[in-house]
Amino acid sequence: MSNRMWGGRFSEGPDEIMEEINASIDFDKKLYMQDIAGSMAHILMLEAKEIVGSEDAQKILHGLDTILREIEAGKFQFSRGLEDIHMNVEARLAELIGPAAGRLHTARSRNDQVATDFRLWVRDTVDVIDGQIAELMLALTEKAQEHFNQVMPGYTHLQTAQPITLGHHLLAYVEMLARDRGRFGDARKRLNQCPLGAAALAGTSFPIDRYMTAKALGFDKPMSNSLDAVSDRDFALETLSAAAITATHLSRLAEEIIIWCSSEFNFIKLSDKFTTGSSIMPQKRNPDAAELVRAKTGRINGALVSLLTVMKGLPLAYSKDMQEDKEQVFDAMETLSLSLAAMAGMIRDMEPENRYMRRSANAGYSTATDLADWLVREVGMPFREAHHVTGRAVAAAAEKKVSLDKMTLEDLQAIDSRFTDDIFNFLSAANSVKSKTSYGGTSPQNVRMAAKEWLALLNRKATKFSQEDLEDD
Amino acid sequence: MSNRMWGGRFSEGPDEIMEEINASIDFDKKLYMQDIAGSMAHILMLEAKEIVGSEDAQKILHGLDTILREIEAGKFQFSRGLEDIHMNVEARLAELIGPAAGRLHTARSRNDQVATDFRLWVRDTVDVIDGQIAELMLALTEKAQEHFNQVMPGYTHLQTAQPITLGHHLLAYVEMLARDRGRFGDARKRLNQCPLGAAALAGTSFPIDRYMTAKALGFDKPMSNSLDAVSDRDFALETLSAAAITATHLSRLAEEIIIWCSSEFNFIKLSDKFTTGSSIMPQKRNPDAAELVRAKTGRINGALVSLLTVMKGLPLAYSKDMQEDKEQVFDAMETLSLSLAAMAGMIRDMEPENRYMRRSANAGYSTATDLADWLVREVGMPFREAHHVTGRAVAAAAEKKVSLDKMTLEDLQAIDSRFTDDIFNFLSAANSVKSKTSYGGTSPQNVRMAAKEWLALLNRKATKFSQEDLEDD
Amino acid sequence: MSNRMWGGRFSEGPDEIMEEINASIDFDKKLYMQDIAGSMAHILMLEAKEIVGSEDAQKILHGLDTILREIEAGKFQFSRGLEDIHMNVEARLAELIGPAAGRLHTARSRNDQVATDFRLWVRDTVDVIDGQIAELMLALTEKAQEHFNQVMPGYTHLQTAQPITLGHHLLAYVEMLARDRGRFGDARKRLNQCPLGAAALAGTSFPIDRYMTAKALGFDKPMSNSLDAVSDRDFALETLSAAAITATHLSRLAEEIIIWCSSEFNFIKLSDKFTTGSSIMPQKRNPDAAELVRAKTGRINGALVSLLTVMKGLPLAYSKDMQEDKEQVFDAMETLSLSLAAMAGMIRDMEPENRYMRRSANAGYSTATDLADWLVREVGMPFREAHHVTGRAVAAAAEKKVSLDKMTLEDLQAIDSRFTDDIFNFLSAANSVKSKTSYGGTSPQNVRMAAKEWLALLNRKATKFSQEDLEDD
Amino acid sequence: MSNRMWGGRFSEGPDEIMEEINASIDFDKKLYMQDIAGSMAHILMLEAKEIVGSEDAQKILHGLDTILREIEAGKFQFSRGLEDIHMNVEARLAELIGPAAGRLHTARSRNDQVATDFRLWVRDTVDVIDGQIAELMLALTEKAQEHFNQVMPGYTHLQTAQPITLGHHLLAYVEMLARDRGRFGDARKRLNQCPLGAAALAGTSFPIDRYMTAKALGFDKPMSNSLDAVSDRDFALETLSAAAITATHLSRLAEEIIIWCSSEFNFIKLSDKFTTGSSIMPQKRNPDAAELVRAKTGRINGALVSLLTVMKGLPLAYSKDMQEDKEQVFDAMETLSLSLAAMAGMIRDMEPENRYMRRSANAGYSTATDLADWLVREVGMPFREAHHVTGRAVAAAAEKKVSLDKMTLEDLQAIDSRFTDDIFNFLSAANSVKSKTSYGGTSPQNVRMAAKEWLALLNRKATKFSQEDLEDD
Repeated sequence: MSNRMWGGRFSEGPDEIMEEINASIDFDKKLYMQDIAGSMAHILMLEAKEIVGSEDAQKILHGLDTILREIEAGKFQFSRGLEDIHMNVEARLAELIGPAAGRLHTARSRNDQVATDFRLWVRDTVDVIDGQIAELMLALTEKAQEHFNQVMPGYTHLQTAQPITLGHHLLAYVEMLARDRGRFGDARKRLNQCPLGAAALAGTSFPIDRYMTAKALGFDKPMSNSLDAVSDRDFALETLSAAAITATHLSRLAEEIIIWCSSEFNFIKLSDKFTTGSSIMPQKRNPDAAELVRAKTGRINGALVSLLTVMKGLPLAYSKDMQEDKEQVFDAMETLSLSLAAMAGMIRDMEPENRYMRRSANAGYSTATDLADWLVREVGMPFREAHHVTGRAVAAAAEKKVSLDKMTLEDLQAIDSRFTDDIFNFLSAANSVKSKTSYGGTSPQNVRMAAKEWLALLNRKATKFSQEDLEDD
Repeated sequence: MSNRMWGGRFSEGPDEIMEEINASIDFDKKLYMQDIAGSMAHILMLEAKEIVGSEDAQKILHGLDTILREIEAGKFQFSRGLEDIHMNVEARLAELIGPAAGRLHTARSRNDQVATDFRLWVRDTVDVIDGQIAELMLALTEKAQEHFNQVMPGYTHLQTAQPITLGHHLLAYVEMLARDRGRFGDARKRLNQCPLGAAALAGTSFPIDRYMTAKALGFDKPMSNSLDAVSDRDFALETLSAAAITATHLSRLAEEIIIWCSSEFNFIKLSDKFTTGSSIMPQKRNPDAAELVRAKTGRINGALVSLLTVMKGLPLAYSKDMQEDKEQVFDAMETLSLSLAAMAGMIRDMEPENRYMRRSANAGYSTATDLADWLVREVGMPFREAHHVTGRAVAAAAEKKVSLDKMTLEDLQAIDSRFTDDIFNFLSAANSVKSKTSYGGTSPQNVRMAAKEWLALLNRKATKFSQEDLEDD
Repeated sequence: MSNRMWGGRFSEGPDEIMEEINASIDFDKKLYMQDIAGSMAHILMLEAKEIVGSEDAQKILHGLDTILREIEAGKFQFSRGLEDIHMNVEARLAELIGPAAGRLHTARSRNDQVATDFRLWVRDTVDVIDGQIAELMLALTEKAQEHFNQVMPGYTHLQTAQPITLGHHLLAYVEMLARDRGRFGDARKRLNQCPLGAAALAGTSFPIDRYMTAKALGFDKPMSNSLDAVSDRDFALETLSAAAITATHLSRLAEEIIIWCSSEFNFIKLSDKFTTGSSIMPQKRNPDAAELVRAKTGRINGALVSLLTVMKGLPLAYSKDMQEDKEQVFDAMETLSLSLAAMAGMIRDMEPENRYMRRSANAGYSTATDLADWLVREVGMPFREAHHVTGRAVAAAAEKKVSLDKMTLEDLQAIDSRFTDDIFNFLSAANSVKSKTSYGGTSPQNVRMAAKEWLALLNRKATKFSQEDLEDD
Repeated sequence: MSNRMWGGRFSEGPDEIMEEINASIDFDKKLYMQDIAGSMAHILMLEAKEIVGSEDAQKILHGLDTILREIEAGKFQFSRGLEDIHMNVEARLAELIGPAAGRLHTARSRNDQVATDFRLWVRDTVDVIDGQIAELMLALTEKAQEHFNQVMPGYTHLQTAQPITLGHHLLAYVEMLARDRGRFGDARKRLNQCPLGAAALAGTSFPIDRYMTAKALGFDKPMSNSLDAVSDRDFALETLSAAAITATHLSRLAEEIIIWCSSEFNFIKLSDKFTTGSSIMPQKRNPDAAELVRAKTGRINGALVSLLTVMKGLPLAYSKDMQEDKEQVFDAMETLSLSLAAMAGMIRDMEPENRYMRRSANAGYSTATDLADWLVREVGMPFREAHHVTGRAVAAAAEKKVSLDKMTLEDLQAIDSRFTDDIFNFLSAANSVKSKTSYGGTSPQNVRMAAKEWLALLNRKATKFSQEDLEDD
């Protein structure tokens, strides 16, 4: 049987495999709410412009409302033979109200309809993600505030570099996540234009009012070029790009949680709520959630690659290839949402093992730079020379198997006679972090102030982080 | 509530979000058959080696058989709290047979169990895909045989280059697909080693017989290193790579079908079975299936990127990140399977529009190379000079707005006096293709013979296309 | 020999292969201008804050200026043994001015230095790309203005859908490119914060003024968290994402140019300047530039995947992995720049073959939707029913092998008796496009106005297309 | 000026930007050796088949030999105006020997020529890579042999799981690398067919002998379909896939080296030869080479994505898009080669810190599974129950802050009365590894034997690791 919606010219129905590859209803039914909202806006406009009479328009509105309730009640029969959400809804509408249903599709096409539905879905989901990122920022900031002066080693190359504070470390992620919100915010603004009324690709000869439908659906304006309106999937690509960068940030934090949970580092403890056991090794407390968050970056990157590949080299206007956009975006955004929730849970749940952090922060000659800086400041040595002298001091301490602050003054003076007792005021991790008071530096006072500012910003209602909004602050 | 399988040491149950991100049962239940087969092989071995007594072993076997039938009858209750297929099966086994169920997990771990299950699934699926590629090769070869001397333009840069035959064009894809089978065949051989008995990562102190379980499950041998056995996902990556290359081939053929179906080319006709209509433009016959096959390359490439990203930088042995392997592979292989089926359907369905193909083949100065070759052969001109002379002849013909064979001898002799009447025997598309008798060339006789050879090869039962098998032929 | 910059503690020099994999000077010398500008800003600040004395500061400034001139004159000896641009410059500075050179690196590290250099390079390059996109938009808009009423077929699924105008088609790309400029503009704003002074990762105890260096280098402000400052590569990822989307747009236009240049379509002609010939087929005019632009999307997508993969799972702060950022970004941005230039050249160069476009626009029952719309408008038929009637009309015309406007009124009335002569006013491509006057529709009057607006916008000096700026317009 | 090779029909030269985007000589000159070898084989065949006279053939051979020597001496002037290596060589040949040079291109095209050149390059490079992987396997195996009984913790989820030996761990990578060699070996076999003689796309009417040229160039046979011969890039995709999987393996080992080098783990020491220092922190010894190897996975994955994207949807036969194949493959293979060399160097260089490995192996309740297995074996408890009992024992030990072997018998009997003194024979890491004698398990005797077998295999001359060869062993 040929499709009752578009099959007028067709004598034969689709091959079974054709139906299987072609039908999108299994996944695009997720758009039912957006689809019905779009149809309602459209029919109200057609009525206002007297393209459809009021009686039919009201029947259609009532029918759509019935369908919405049927779907939400789980009573709607979705049919693969009707291909997609649009045709499923229209066919049911015809059952409910008869031929008047056929007036709904006046001056539109599935091409502009699906573009509208999908934009609405992406826009709504971006708002949810934005809220979740804000939640994670809050969790990080509160933890940072609590541990604003907890000393830990800062690493470069995973080698102990200089002592930092845990609060400072956590706030670095708050910075990253704020940029993520900015990217989602900018994507949201750019996508918030309405394709509806572009019809198949060329616009229409009916005297429609695209500003009216755009406004009804919360869009800033109608899209300006009908070909672009139906063939553009930038909004999906840009949203996936933002998601991939956010996921990359989460993967970095997840990697750190995993390393910190190792018994060799032992920097933090996750409770039973965020660890799992082994089917064979009874002692294990595996940070599975962190590992999964790390892994899911791959999934989101994959979705981005998928859609970039799909869109490559597609001539205008709509091609069926674009139907591959939805599953990738659905999956990526749901994956990101789950990852954000899991990460916020872990951050709230984790407890630092202060003792181990502090011990590590004091090991590994982590204050060697402080010694070099002392030589520059107090002795007036050029930094490069001070760096060499410090290198020799570290080598001597390593030889003696002691840390720098356990060297004697004689030991140090054997390397450079200008060392004085004063140097020992600068070789503990605690003093090192206190001294890093430059803007953005790790000193506890900096961290406390930064955390306070972030909390104020995060607690303001409905803050968005797009470029403009940030600049206003 | 903590997990009843591994929760001995845990005082608290998982966070709700933890369960959601951690549980894999929603997708790994697809492995139920492999999981039960693996458990049966394992318990038979444990019994044979007297690690588990016969009575318990028989109870377990019977219980597993019951579970298999419950799942296949749709009566099994899958539980997310039990995380995965392995724990769901074992928990049900305990319900069915009591504490003896606890003996099944002796000398194994979920790490080697899931590696075994997933390898079995990939192996079985590779066999299905291999059969589907063979089906598509058959469809192409039969169509090629039918149209072995149908002249059409051969393109480079989508510019008419030289006349070829449709049969030759279709057989080019048969070559590609044969290499695809080779890649899947080699991947299959390489993966066909059994991880079972590697236990968590270190092997076991129980006197197990890994050769016995390997053999029972159809593997060539047990894997040689227990750490590698549980941490290797090469088999998934290699299979996804082979799938991505196959999908790329399909995308090329799909692109051609789409271009050929345009009214400007009009080279082929797809029936109603493989085209769809428009919700607004009643005249459309859209080659949706071809477009979707083209697009699905992106999806498979994305799956490959996902898993490569997941595996990057994972320390040995098992990390939970690897749980992300399954959905990507499931989706990619099912996508490939659907694409292959759709493409085979389209190839069988398509009918060439001989008239348009022939007309195009004769246009665009497609036999200019034949003219150049004639100058080399008959006049003894160096090819590079003949190429220049021909360039001038084409320019003159273009100026005169005629095709090459509509030039007069005088026209040609004005360019080079050595042209004779004989040249006109070489300027039709039909004669051009006939002359291309070099090995692998497009002449109808070559095509007929190649098609015959492929048919013979494809009709042989159970031919595999791995490197070795091809070399035997 | 160990590195003279950091080798104080090292007794042995690097392995040869270590030097080869580790040194970045072969590619990061591209940053010499940014590196010297950053050092100049830094030393001026150190002088102002009295961290370095004026005499040494002036020597350093003078030395840096000498080095800049040496590099620009091609007289600078780059050394792999010195690893990177930073060490090459500092080592040369020491040769030129002696130990005072060692004061330059006070209160900074290569970690913040390279982050600053690279941000400056990306920012400058984004500005160049923005200008090039504007050039391409201009070329497209001018061509659109010229051909605002040139009728051509609009396609969906590469099947003739409805007639459109060439101007409308080209302006669709102007819309896409405007969004691209918006994305680059937003990325530029987000990246324009200064890492300098973050030092290795923790900030510094020297009383530096990060606002001063930020301002000197044209940054909006210093970055707020020192760990984030040295470990962030979002700016590279976001820029690559924007580049990948732009490249995708170019690939779509390139695909169309390739198809339009085929002899079957023959919609446009590219001159010798943008086509190449064949080494064997003298008649060929290959649209190589368009093919290469289409292909280079792959290269840019690859760069994005590379860097996403590199950044996945990297713990804070700096890891050497990040050195892989530069070659990918350099190559991607240069590739994009080349693609934009080539595309602008092709657009300016191309000449439409009006006759073929018009013929195709009138073929393929392209005005069937107009017939359906007439039934809705004039007869009051519900659209869905009109669609079915039109389907039958198209089938009847196809049966008779004529176009819709060649059907007789009797033919049409045999299908539906309500057809009148008036219908024949709506079945030509020219009339069809004229009727599409809805906002964003393809009517020539719309296209003329849109082109005029774009020209006005593009000719305004220094327009940027970030979200804000667009909203101001 | 138009190209003197193919410009016969062209009146205008290319645009400057066209030349820049179009010319490939900057990178394809790397193929000079393969190009000249291919031309030599071709002209010898043309001479043998009397298509070109002996005198001209000898001139050509002599000229090609001169060109080869010019290039190798660095005296050859490459010209961008001549586009590529093929035209550069032919143009120089014409300078050297005059018009006879024009006979070389008889019965071939740049399309089959470049396909031949590139296959030869990939084949040769695969052989180099195969040798490098063998070297790395040797380094790993020798290190494994040396440390066959060095106890270290085995990890899952980066949590201590069970004790293993360092030798066993290193041999896991030998297994992975052996599969890598298999993949490269299979790719090599599949690609080793000769495209030469396919000409532009259709074959030729000259009576060429493609078996002769194939044999002369070391190919197994000529490719069977001329369209496929010029449009296939499977060999590049398959080689890149194999490279990406190998790079993934290297990234895993690199990650481990980085973690092991951290002061918290301190499992190994790399010498000065494979570490670098810091420009600001004098104490650092950074494992840069390992970080770069880890990162370069991204680069190779990116190359694979690039070429998959390029090839997606390309119609047959040759399109200029394919010119993008070479730089990606060149870069990926050189990157892989460098990574393999660096990794082999690091493995040879690294020295385990036995004390820290052993300490970690005994910590973290790593022998809990041994305790559970004892309960199964000695008490006859079902494993699942034993697992629960062990979980309680671990919890009790954790409560008491001691390791399992420091629990008293009373402590254990309080948990299960069936514990006996015998259990203490199984709770040390050393005894645990000794007991894992199952096939592929970590026991020192297994490791010693496996290392011995690998050494024997690796020392055999010219072993290849394709599927067949492995099966022969």
